[in-house]
Amino acid sequence: MSEPILRLGMIGGGPGSFIGPIHRMAAELDGRIRLVAGAFSSDAERSRLAGAGYGIDPARAYPSHQAMIEAERLRADGIDLVAIVTPNHLHVPASLDALNAGLHVMCDKPAALSLAQMQGLAGVVAGSKGLYALTHTYTGYPLVRDARALVASGRLGRLRKVVVEYSQGWLSTALEATGSKQAGWRTDPALSGAGGCIGDIGVHAFNLAEYVAGAPVRELCADLSIMVPGRRLDDDCNILLRFDDGTAQGVPGVLHASQIAAGDRNGLRLRVFGTEAGLDWSQEVPNILTINGLDGRTEVLHAGAGNLGPAARAATRLPTGHPEGYIEAFANLYRDFAAAIRAGAMPADGSLPGVDAGLRGMAFIETAVANSQARAGWSRLVR
Amino acid sequence: MSEPILRLGMIGGGPGSFIGPIHRMAAELDGRIRLVAGAFSSDAERSRLAGAGYGIDPARAYPSHQAMIEAERLRADGIDLVAIVTPNHLHVPASLDALNAGLHVMCDKPAALSLAQMQGLAGVVAGSKGLYALTHTYTGYPLVRDARALVASGRLGRLRKVVVEYSQGWLSTALEATGSKQAGWRTDPALSGAGGCIGDIGVHAFNLAEYVAGAPVRELCADLSIMVPGRRLDDDCNILLRFDDGTAQGVPGVLHASQIAAGDRNGLRLRVFGTEAGLDWSQEVPNILTINGLDGRTEVLHAGAGNLGPAARAATRLPTGHPEGYIEAFANLYRDFAAAIRAGAMPADGSLPGVDAGLRGMAFIETAVANSQARAGWSRLVR
Amino acid sequence: MSEPILRLGMIGGGPGSFIGPIHRMAAELDGRIRLVAGAFSSDAERSRLAGAGYGIDPARAYPSHQAMIEAERLRADGIDLVAIVTPNHLHVPASLDALNAGLHVMCDKPAALSLAQMQGLAGVVAGSKGLYALTHTYTGYPLVRDARALVASGRLGRLRKVVVEYSQGWLSTALEATGSKQAGWRTDPALSGAGGCIGDIGVHAFNLAEYVAGAPVRELCADLSIMVPGRRLDDDCNILLRFDDGTAQGVPGVLHASQIAAGDRNGLRLRVFGTEAGLDWSQEVPNILTINGLDGRTEVLHAGAGNLGPAARAATRLPTGHPEGYIEAFANLYRDFAAAIRAGAMPADGSLPGVDAGLRGMAFIETAVANSQARAGWSRLVR
Amino acid sequence: MSEPILRLGMIGGGPGSFIGPIHRMAAELDGRIRLVAGAFSSDAERSRLAGAGYGIDPARAYPSHQAMIEAERLRADGIDLVAIVTPNHLHVPASLDALNAGLHVMCDKPAALSLAQMQGLAGVVAGSKGLYALTHTYTGYPLVRDARALVASGRLGRLRKVVVEYSQGWLSTALEATGSKQAGWRTDPALSGAGGCIGDIGVHAFNLAEYVAGAPVRELCADLSIMVPGRRLDDDCNILLRFDDGTAQGVPGVLHASQIAAGDRNGLRLRVFGTEAGLDWSQEVPNILTINGLDGRTEVLHAGAGNLGPAARAATRLPTGHPEGYIEAFANLYRDFAAAIRAGAMPADGSLPGVDAGLRGMAFIETAVANSQARAGWSRLVR
Repeated sequence: MSEPILRLGMIGGGPGSFIGPIHRMAAELDGRIRLVAGAFSSDAERSRLAGAGYGIDPARAYPSHQAMIEAERLRADGIDLVAIVTPNHLHVPASLDALNAGLHVMCDKPAALSLAQMQGLAGVVAGSKGLYALTHTYTGYPLVRDARALVASGRLGRLRKVVVEYSQGWLSTALEATGSKQAGWRTDPALSGAGGCIGDIGVHAFNLAEYVAGAPVRELCADLSIMVPGRRLDDDCNILLRFDDGTAQGVPGVLHASQIAAGDRNGLRLRVFGTEAGLDWSQEVPNILTINGLDGRTEVLHAGAGNLGPAARAATRLPTGHPEGYIEAFANLYRDFAAAIRAGAMPADGSLPGVDAGLRGMAFIETAVANSQARAGWSRLVR
Repeated sequence: MSEPILRLGMIGGGPGSFIGPIHRMAAELDGRIRLVAGAFSSDAERSRLAGAGYGIDPARAYPSHQAMIEAERLRADGIDLVAIVTPNHLHVPASLDALNAGLHVMCDKPAALSLAQMQGLAGVVAGSKGLYALTHTYTGYPLVRDARALVASGRLGRLRKVVVEYSQGWLSTALEATGSKQAGWRTDPALSGAGGCIGDIGVHAFNLAEYVAGAPVRELCADLSIMVPGRRLDDDCNILLRFDDGTAQGVPGVLHASQIAAGDRNGLRLRVFGTEAGLDWSQEVPNILTINGLDGRTEVLHAGAGNLGPAARAATRLPTGHPEGYIEAFANLYRDFAAAIRAGAMPADGSLPGVDAGLRGMAFIETAVANSQARAGWSRLVR
Repeated sequence: MSEPILRLGMIGGGPGSFIGPIHRMAAELDGRIRLVAGAFSSDAERSRLAGAGYGIDPARAYPSHQAMIEAERLRADGIDLVAIVTPNHLHVPASLDALNAGLHVMCDKPAALSLAQMQGLAGVVAGSKGLYALTHTYTGYPLVRDARALVASGRLGRLRKVVVEYSQGWLSTALEATGSKQAGWRTDPALSGAGGCIGDIGVHAFNLAEYVAGAPVRELCADLSIMVPGRRLDDDCNILLRFDDGTAQGVPGVLHASQIAAGDRNGLRLRVFGTEAGLDWSQEVPNILTINGLDGRTEVLHAGAGNLGPAARAATRLPTGHPEGYIEAFANLYRDFAAAIRAGAMPADGSLPGVDAGLRGMAFIETAVANSQARAGWSRLVR
Repeated sequence: MSEPILRLGMIGGGPGSFIGPIHRMAAELDGRIRLVAGAFSSDAERSRLAGAGYGIDPARAYPSHQAMIEAERLRADGIDLVAIVTPNHLHVPASLDALNAGLHVMCDKPAALSLAQMQGLAGVVAGSKGLYALTHTYTGYPLVRDARALVASGRLGRLRKVVVEYSQGWLSTALEATGSKQAGWRTDPALSGAGGCIGDIGVHAFNLAEYVAGAPVRELCADLSIMVPGRRLDDDCNILLRFDDGTAQGVPGVLHASQIAAGDRNGLRLRVFGTEAGLDWSQEVPNILTINGLDGRTEVLHAGAGNLGPAARAATRLPTGHPEGYIEAFANLYRDFAAAIRAGAMPADGSLPGVDAGLRGMAFIETAVANSQARAGWSRLVR
């Protein structure tokens, strides 16, 4: 653990940001990365102000990511990687600039404004020495890692069905009309892209399902709605899925996500069923994983317990019974990314979401939006 | 409570039957109905054997429902109502014979083999002095009654979304090939009709959603699958819904049901979201109802508690904290039906499923099966 | 199942009774016992009124249990057994009269007003042809039966610790001063005996602990309180226990029970820990049993599942996932008692609480009450 | 947030330490404290090795806390506070040295080897400019803060009963005989003091109960056991309590804790009952707090929700539904301590455990150990 600490520059995350401070906590939790610079806001004064809040050297709070990249490149202790925590429309431009400067990129999801834009980025990543990771945070939970390993091990048998849901209620009212920054950009197509709920959380559910099930979605049939009058992007989405398991029929699935499910908090839940057993994981009680077998027996796995697999154990810091949460899951992504940077390559097993997850996610969003508008049956998901 | 006890004749429920003994327990639980006769099997000896098991007079165990109806009509203490607990194909023929004899009918669901058959029956019921009820058992749970009342009261605000699921795993293998009677008829189109999973449990979920949400499904888009090789009827179904709330757009919903969700038991769960709050009820922990409000507050209601509404209180026998279960829910249907018989009419508030639920259910099954085969978008649900 | 149906006479259970109707439902649920007579009240008119409510022949509603015993003995179809559902002070007198008439007795707990009174009864039972059972209802739950079997099988290893609790809140106020019949007799020493909370529910917890742990309590140190001003009997009790495992040290345990735990419903919960694993069961979610192993693995057993042992399976009527509750648990006691009556002897494995449970329970109540008053350390529990 | 960052030196926390890395993560999480020095081990090389793991300047990894204090005092950027994470026997000596050097102290619990030793320390703290805080980590959970505020607000009415438990199973076997460092010192009286389980976790439960209930324990009656053969300190403890509510009778309570509750993880749970309602909180699902009212209504509060009180909101970093855990709770203690250091005084409301909690805890441990040995009734808890 005596490797040099990686230096992080943040893009976005200015005053009022929800996710900026979380990135700092997650990045720094394991002592391998330190936030040292930032282009927190395009307003120089606000960027400085944010920098002071983050406790960084005021000289390293920049008014633009371009300024940061240029200035940091001249320092002996300049940044090694950037975290892009802006609204969606800046994800790809900032990623491109950072990669072109040889920096590594940890980017918020969804990866881009469109699949085409993401395809362009994918080409640049392929030719860059910078690595690219995507904050599908929920893949960082220890029991999500264990679930993925269990499916891969054949413990569930052959894949039979997937149910994934992500239920929130915080956009039940027209929050964007009240000046809420968080609601504002998420409901603005210019800043968010074509997807509202589907781009904000549906894509997390989609990613989690593919990540654990180990099979890609092949076709979908979607029903996206705008339930709050005046809103411009979907706030509820319900989607039939077919996963590709190599058979003509495929494997059925359901994804439903909502931001108008009044009273729901952050209800991401995944169930995967095989021929032998089913598994069940919920983000709000993240430290257990339930496995139900054909014989009627239910097994509950606990984070930190000795009987978990190596992937889950590597993602846990505390003894069993001491809850770890969202920040720790997020920190696992940063820890994995730090290891990847040191290794010079993303993990071969796909355990850390990157370009491929970005392409899949954008294809999912675009296909679902178009399919829902057509209301004419199923669409193939191609990326 | 000193009214004369109603006399029940059972049709079906012979040796090996799962549901027959439950009907007896449920019907008799409150001391207002007594099982006195039965056409338990078309084999006279097996019918007698079953009758002995039920503790009835051997002379009143008949080899056919026609024989029972004819013989009982001649007795001063003849039966007042029948319970039809056969496979689906006999539901309508037996109902017709009973109604034509002036008897009341408590029939298992789904009500018929087809919507057309059910429409025929509906006409007969309308002209009969016999009443007709359908065993959508789950509507008998106290907290389902409370949920229905809460939605009707406006506590949730205007309807926004419905998620209903019914997840079982017991048909994960080709059980029907092993001689299982329960699996056998449920997977046989001649005995079950066009729906497998959708007719056996999907229709329960559908009924529950409409019962509580207080709005009918207007359109659907379905994906039904046969996942166990060699099976002849669907064992998994996932359906997008639109409920009719008087608007052009309608209210989105999802229904997913499965009998190949390995390890799941009897996972019927309903969530209804409004503009102000959401409710959540699960059949396997039936004595609580959770309500989540926009303000972040969760309220949990408990069966038997003093703060429940009158419908829920009327459906509870024990003090709070003393669990009542499936048999008691079922008994609530029988109790309501006994009261209806005494009153000479089904309850005006629709709280006891009858002909209308039968028509809706058959329309749902037929529409979903046809829609899934077409794979071409949405179908209107007309009954 | 074609044995003649046993005929039951109820003693107590008049208008306003909570437990009387439950006895009827439980006794009749499986079709092997039928309520045919009763001495529901010492007021002849009220007894007749109650009899009508229970649907029995008005001629068999008697004004005293003596009258019932005398009259029924003259009938060819006279009663075979009595259910004693009165306040505690009548338990032994009624039991004696019934046993002396050759009737079998199902008596509510606690068995007597005092240990001495119960010792007297024990002698009579020993010399009677009538059998005697005690309604420690919670022993009738399938997963309590399974828990008992698991401990006996050695699955938990050697016994290490027992925690049992029974938490209610319904006596948080001076309900007895408001005319509540249920609260009235339970807080009256003349009707209840020396124990309030400890006699009403503490003794259930004690019984359950010994029933499942398979070891008797040897010593205790008790703290009983009256928390509601003006009340005459304890409404809260907390007790340190030592179970006898054959060692000098014994096995530690805790029992806490309350009727002033505001907001609690019927919170009976048992945890038993051994050298290899621990088990956990709660009455309010009675259909699961959780087993936690030293290896960090948690197993959840479900009522009705194929992997349960024979005792649990025999106590279940429905497929897994279809909740059974308190009435069904109670009915299991009646079913077992009916079988015992037919066999002419109580089950040899002690699975149905009887005289011994009555003696143990009375010794527990008396010892705890006296120990709590002395406040001087530990007392040996002798019966 | 632009105050200078406080500099932390760690005492203990060398290779193999469980709690040292947690202190670093917790202290640094909010960016207000940074670990810059340490006396991680009395072996100079091991201390350096640990320092490298923590990412600090190798020159600031010292072989003793005395060396650290002396050297750091000479630096312009020397440490402001120490974290004492050693076995118990060093807590007071290291605290004294740090306080005498004018440093602030965050010390692990239990505070001392004995009450007398803690009383000596209390005098020094009173005369020192250094502040002293104790890591009763569980008081840092947002919903513990909310529970405390609810009790103080009178929401539960007057105090009626307290049940607190802390159940672990990791010492079910003689782990100390296998070379486990964690088990080794915890079962060694020379390093741990007179209490085993009671000093390691019982004192946490005790502290939590007093912290939330807002009333001190006045008397206790204890039963401590050594259940694993050969062990030298208690591994199971069950204690009757009386809280002081100003009445002669006091308020009953139960505390049970175990490290031989096979299969249990970190089961700290607190229930507090008043005349109007009861509350229930469990450390393993820390982000909810359940309140049950006399009217039968249950309310569940969620961390991060808008309806929580200011103390809980100040202790939360994330939106509701995004789990925070043990590290975040721990970080709340550090955050509060940093604020106290800046303010020059511990918080007046007692929300951050310090000297008083240390005195109470040591009195509790000593009184319980002595009382259990005497087995002669109740002992007054005096500090």
